[in-house]
Amino acid sequence: MKIRGFMAAIVLILGLSVITGLGTKAQNIAQNLSDSKTSRKAINTQDISLEQANLVLEKAKAKAIKLGTKMDIAIVDAGGNLKAFARMDGACLGCIDIAIRKARTARLFDRPSGELGKLSQPGGSLYAIEHSNGGLITFPGGLPLKDARGNILGAIGVSGDTVENDLLVAQAGADALVWMSR
Amino acid sequence: MKIRGFMAAIVLILGLSVITGLGTKAQNIAQNLSDSKTSRKAINTQDISLEQANLVLEKAKAKAIKLGTKMDIAIVDAGGNLKAFARMDGACLGCIDIAIRKARTARLFDRPSGELGKLSQPGGSLYAIEHSNGGLITFPGGLPLKDARGNILGAIGVSGDTVENDLLVAQAGADALVWMSR
Amino acid sequence: MKIRGFMAAIVLILGLSVITGLGTKAQNIAQNLSDSKTSRKAINTQDISLEQANLVLEKAKAKAIKLGTKMDIAIVDAGGNLKAFARMDGACLGCIDIAIRKARTARLFDRPSGELGKLSQPGGSLYAIEHSNGGLITFPGGLPLKDARGNILGAIGVSGDTVENDLLVAQAGADALVWMSR
Amino acid sequence: MKIRGFMAAIVLILGLSVITGLGTKAQNIAQNLSDSKTSRKAINTQDISLEQANLVLEKAKAKAIKLGTKMDIAIVDAGGNLKAFARMDGACLGCIDIAIRKARTARLFDRPSGELGKLSQPGGSLYAIEHSNGGLITFPGGLPLKDARGNILGAIGVSGDTVENDLLVAQAGADALVWMSR
Repeated sequence: MKIRGFMAAIVLILGLSVITGLGTKAQNIAQNLSDSKTSRKAINTQDISLEQANLVLEKAKAKAIKLGTKMDIAIVDAGGNLKAFARMDGACLGCIDIAIRKARTARLFDRPSGELGKLSQPGGSLYAIEHSNGGLITFPGGLPLKDARGNILGAIGVSGDTVENDLLVAQAGADALVWMSR
Repeated sequence: MKIRGFMAAIVLILGLSVITGLGTKAQNIAQNLSDSKTSRKAINTQDISLEQANLVLEKAKAKAIKLGTKMDIAIVDAGGNLKAFARMDGACLGCIDIAIRKARTARLFDRPSGELGKLSQPGGSLYAIEHSNGGLITFPGGLPLKDARGNILGAIGVSGDTVENDLLVAQAGADALVWMSR
Repeated sequence: MKIRGFMAAIVLILGLSVITGLGTKAQNIAQNLSDSKTSRKAINTQDISLEQANLVLEKAKAKAIKLGTKMDIAIVDAGGNLKAFARMDGACLGCIDIAIRKARTARLFDRPSGELGKLSQPGGSLYAIEHSNGGLITFPGGLPLKDARGNILGAIGVSGDTVENDLLVAQAGADALVWMSR
Repeated sequence: MKIRGFMAAIVLILGLSVITGLGTKAQNIAQNLSDSKTSRKAINTQDISLEQANLVLEKAKAKAIKLGTKMDIAIVDAGGNLKAFARMDGACLGCIDIAIRKARTARLFDRPSGELGKLSQPGGSLYAIEHSNGGLITFPGGLPLKDARGNILGAIGVSGDTVENDLLVAQAGADALVWMSR
């Protein structure tokens, strides 16, 4: 209906242009309106669903159990906002905030949190980037969550053990999203 | 390729079920795999583009000039993150933060900031909600930015004059997005 | 081993008291040691498990679906720390923080968040308590989570709709914990 | 009126000085008052206009497009307050805050953000200066914005790619202001 109305407006302008002899100018106006319409599209994006987030949580938790450890696991959406969270019984309290920040960091910069940490060391190109965005965590355990085509739908952050184990658990979660979106 | 591989796995399971006589159970497994695939889709969303945001800024600014006033104007995206901002010459410094918070508030709750303010008064159902989300602004001047079909693509926040004028300028910006997405 | 060593120490003191004739005084010391042992015990507490928290989340989510609404749901443990969280698809972004704060508020004061709000109004006995603890939310939607005997194991916070619906969903979650701990 | 009153006061003092024979001293007082008048002028400053800021944004964005990258670009005014901002479609979310902080850092210290970073390393003369001013960003991508005569009118901050590319884009913006103020 609305597209039809817009087309009608263009036709009306063109029609008036013939009647009034203002052809060229009216055609330009119609053309400009048309151009501005087509170039001002919204961006099509995708976001992680709660069902996906919960499966990622489950797979990450299963990996933690297999490793014999206890983790805090956070999932943020494409906008960097918290989508789902689970703290395994006995997992460390301070790791709640770290898990959430790792997930946020991974989405804010679309890369593993630990890669940022390599660049934020003294002398590094991103030295002290941790001071931005209300406090980043730049050691391993945060990963972007991508579907099978590589679209970033959110991020996962894991904290509770060594950064090596944190990363293994995060990877298990990230792998699950790739698998389920195939 | 990946879908084909998945189909092949299902066929393989079904085929094995015939051979081994475990028909019912194998079919259930294949069915479950298939169900979990189809129900775990990502959410399709839309986000405001910079070109759209800049046009919204321009239309809001034009309205401010028409009103003979000076405004700070902020646009946030669908995730509540800053997309574009302009402070007109002579617009108040404290209004920078307020314009951004109005826009964020409008998107965080998908309604005009001023509507939230009606409910956050003493005795209201959302009394003191301003303490959440790092500080909300709940007086008028923040509006969700919707396309012509009503999808929320972001929000606009305007500050610099009376809240009545702030709202008029925000509305001019919001109207522009509806118009351009028709 | 340690209890046996402790008993031995008491016997030794009693034995020495007989030998030295300082019977009464030595008996007092032994008595005091024994008393202090019984009174210096740690506090036995109970905390919500992740399995319980996830079931509470599920029941709350089911209630939200029944009401035809979308909610952010947070569970905090007995220490007031985040235990589990879920944001339903399409639930409001600003409600993430509010749900978590409602849960924290309910546990920090061991009462429904809305009861605190009645006392925090202008002129009320707890006026502006929202400024404490990094920001409280004192309107309805936060409830302590108690087991069947009334022990508080944590709290639930729900945000996403009217405070009436938020409270209904929180109550469904709280009821689930009572039921499962019978 | 006030100037006349002031002149009258000087005349009165001079007149008194003649009468009382305290000529030299009174003349000194009058001279000092007159001097202090001329030295207590306000400071003449210059500030970036929105039109200038938008042109700087455009030129920076054009450079980013030429480099095939996506940037967050912030302009602050002479007071270090946000003047204009644009996030290119697909530019990283965490770079919003970094772009703004780079611009602020460049203006707060009137030098490229990266020069500060050389001094803020462990052992450096400004070690950990990032902790001041609510959080600085001291790696490259922030530049003072100067007119053709070298007056600082504000600053630009760019974030979204390598610090080398961030700096190239910031420089394109800074060059534009020099060019347009010639």
